[in-house]
Amino acid sequence: MRERLLAAEKIKAIEWRDGALHLLDQRLLPLREHWVACHSAAEVAQAIRDMLVRGAPAIGISAAYGVVLGARQRAAAGEDWQATVSADFELLAASRPTAVNLFWALNRMRERLTRMAGEGALAALEAEAVAIHLSDREANLTMAQLGVELIRKHDASKQTFLTHCNTGALATGGFGTALGVLRAAHLDGLVECVHADETRPWLQGSRLTAWELAGEGIPVSLNADAAAAHLMKTRNVAWVIVGADRITANGDVANKIGTYNLAVIAMHHGVRFMVVAPSSTIDMNLASGDDIPIEERAGHELLEAGGQRIAAEVEAFNPVFDVTPADLIDAIVTERGVVERPDAKKMAELMNRRRLH
Amino acid sequence: MRERLLAAEKIKAIEWRDGALHLLDQRLLPLREHWVACHSAAEVAQAIRDMLVRGAPAIGISAAYGVVLGARQRAAAGEDWQATVSADFELLAASRPTAVNLFWALNRMRERLTRMAGEGALAALEAEAVAIHLSDREANLTMAQLGVELIRKHDASKQTFLTHCNTGALATGGFGTALGVLRAAHLDGLVECVHADETRPWLQGSRLTAWELAGEGIPVSLNADAAAAHLMKTRNVAWVIVGADRITANGDVANKIGTYNLAVIAMHHGVRFMVVAPSSTIDMNLASGDDIPIEERAGHELLEAGGQRIAAEVEAFNPVFDVTPADLIDAIVTERGVVERPDAKKMAELMNRRRLH
Repeated sequence: MRERLLAAEKIKAIEWRDGALHLLDQRLLPLREHWVACHSAAEVAQAIRDMLVRGAPAIGISAAYGVVLGARQRAAAGEDWQATVSADFELLAASRPTAVNLFWALNRMRERLTRMAGEGALAALEAEAVAIHLSDREANLTMAQLGVELIRKHDASKQTFLTHCNTGALATGGFGTALGVLRAAHLDGLVECVHADETRPWLQGSRLTAWELAGEGIPVSLNADAAAAHLMKTRNVAWVIVGADRITANGDVANKIGTYNLAVIAMHHGVRFMVVAPSSTIDMNLASGDDIPIEERAGHELLEAGGQRIAAEVEAFNPVFDVTPADLIDAIVTERGVVERPDAKKMAELMNRRRLH
Repeated sequence: MRERLLAAEKIKAIEWRDGALHLLDQRLLPLREHWVACHSAAEVAQAIRDMLVRGAPAIGISAAYGVVLGARQRAAAGEDWQATVSADFELLAASRPTAVNLFWALNRMRERLTRMAGEGALAALEAEAVAIHLSDREANLTMAQLGVELIRKHDASKQTFLTHCNTGALATGGFGTALGVLRAAHLDGLVECVHADETRPWLQGSRLTAWELAGEGIPVSLNADAAAAHLMKTRNVAWVIVGADRITANGDVANKIGTYNLAVIAMHHGVRFMVVAPSSTIDMNLASGDDIPIEERAGHELLEAGGQRIAAEVEAFNPVFDVTPADLIDAIVTERGVVERPDAKKMAELMNRRRLH
């Protein structure tokens, strides 16, 4: 499976080359494939804030490279960069509040920095960012295999799935979390159809997930977010599979707004609910989802389309994440293993376990 | 209350004057207020099919006037119009499949026709269409008062509501079904805030509901459809109030896609769920919601915005209604009275009752 998965890898959205971080601008897909080169920590922070790059793992990886860019620039300017680079850490940390992978990656970079000094420090920092990137790709591979095993355990025939937002190559360092599982399930002959929520207001489903799946010949059907209950009732959906932006110590999951809707509706219809995320998404410092800061973005994301006003002049409430309580989740799939019917005890056991790879 | 409601009536979307049916084009709102005059049954059928006019009661009223236009045209052409007008009935009946008010109005017109002959028949037909229009307006007034009584019975203080699609003056012959109740609740000092789902793919919430409520100074906040569970969990929503396109003999309700999502999520959060619709929406010929034909519209409604492609080249599943089972509904409010916790027995009792007005 691993080899087949690697062979199926086609899309990359993050490239570290020629001394810069190159990002595939996700705001313009699928109409335009436009790459943007970031040369500074500030440019990376801006790219994260403006959602040029999005997806919890991809944000974490980008921030790590952002630290490298910041350190290099400060070193070139003759600064005491190991001291002043803390400003870049702060800038990057302030770019988006909900996904914890960002803070996890910055913490890894900060730890690396404190263990190094002198001439090798810059190179070590770069090596750490590359390691974060590569290990996310490895985690994707492991999760894809574990996810497929879990699907197969319940039913080994072709099935119908529903996913939300984009959790594929565009959101990660590899070929995806939830979408990685769906890719692997397709290679394994388990996919009848993947229904994809369009995912308002940014339409990551319409623009990104549909594009990724169609590009690989995986049967995909797009629907309005509001069609979920009708879909589950009429289309024999076996699993809802989604990613995560932060998972707390009790197994609560923050993810793209609409995930909590799906979890409640899935429970009502007896549809299984799987969350796929690397362990870097797990925040053992927060007891429950109530503690997760939920980003609210500007109202114009709802009130405008293509720069043109579509709505009346009113207030808009635009939270971009919600929290799904653990008791609505059948399984959390990480690269460290699978937690079925998650709770605080099982999450702690998972995090104390040795990594599978 | 009745006088205050009538005084608050500001928006009209259907006008019968100068021998034509004038419709406020709902596809262009709120950016443009453009009226279209229909002079034939075919033009009315096209306006319904293209959603220039929408909303179950408004469709029924428009179809009734469409019959008058068809009959007049045929009479003017020297046809045996009372025989040939059946083609107009068929054309209008084929315009949209889900809302039953269309068929109800056409049936009323057909019955009227069979009871009339000779010179007065054309005038009688017009009088019947006008009566359908006026009685819908009266029904709105009665339902608004009954809905407010129901809200007040549970809590007489300011509350937060959530609504879906547009059920206001633009969808009816008066000032609305669900939105009529919310208007009356506002006049009665019961509205803290009305949260409005944007309602993809046509954005009736963003374009129409927000416009209607903002125009009357009713506090309104727009949100993505996918934010419903997060809203109910964090914003203390007291009631979800929606309209209906068809209600079956057991109390199942077909309404705009996403209504069933809301009903499941409301039940999970202990939020009350009210359906407001005139008795012309009740179809006692269908035993349950499973029998309701659910319209699926073209995929481009999801894949394009403002004529421009936004999504990847994939299939789209675009059902525009769903069915909410009666057991998720706290109350159905009609002009004949209120049915709490609807079932077949209570629906039959309601339909055998004398009208309240």
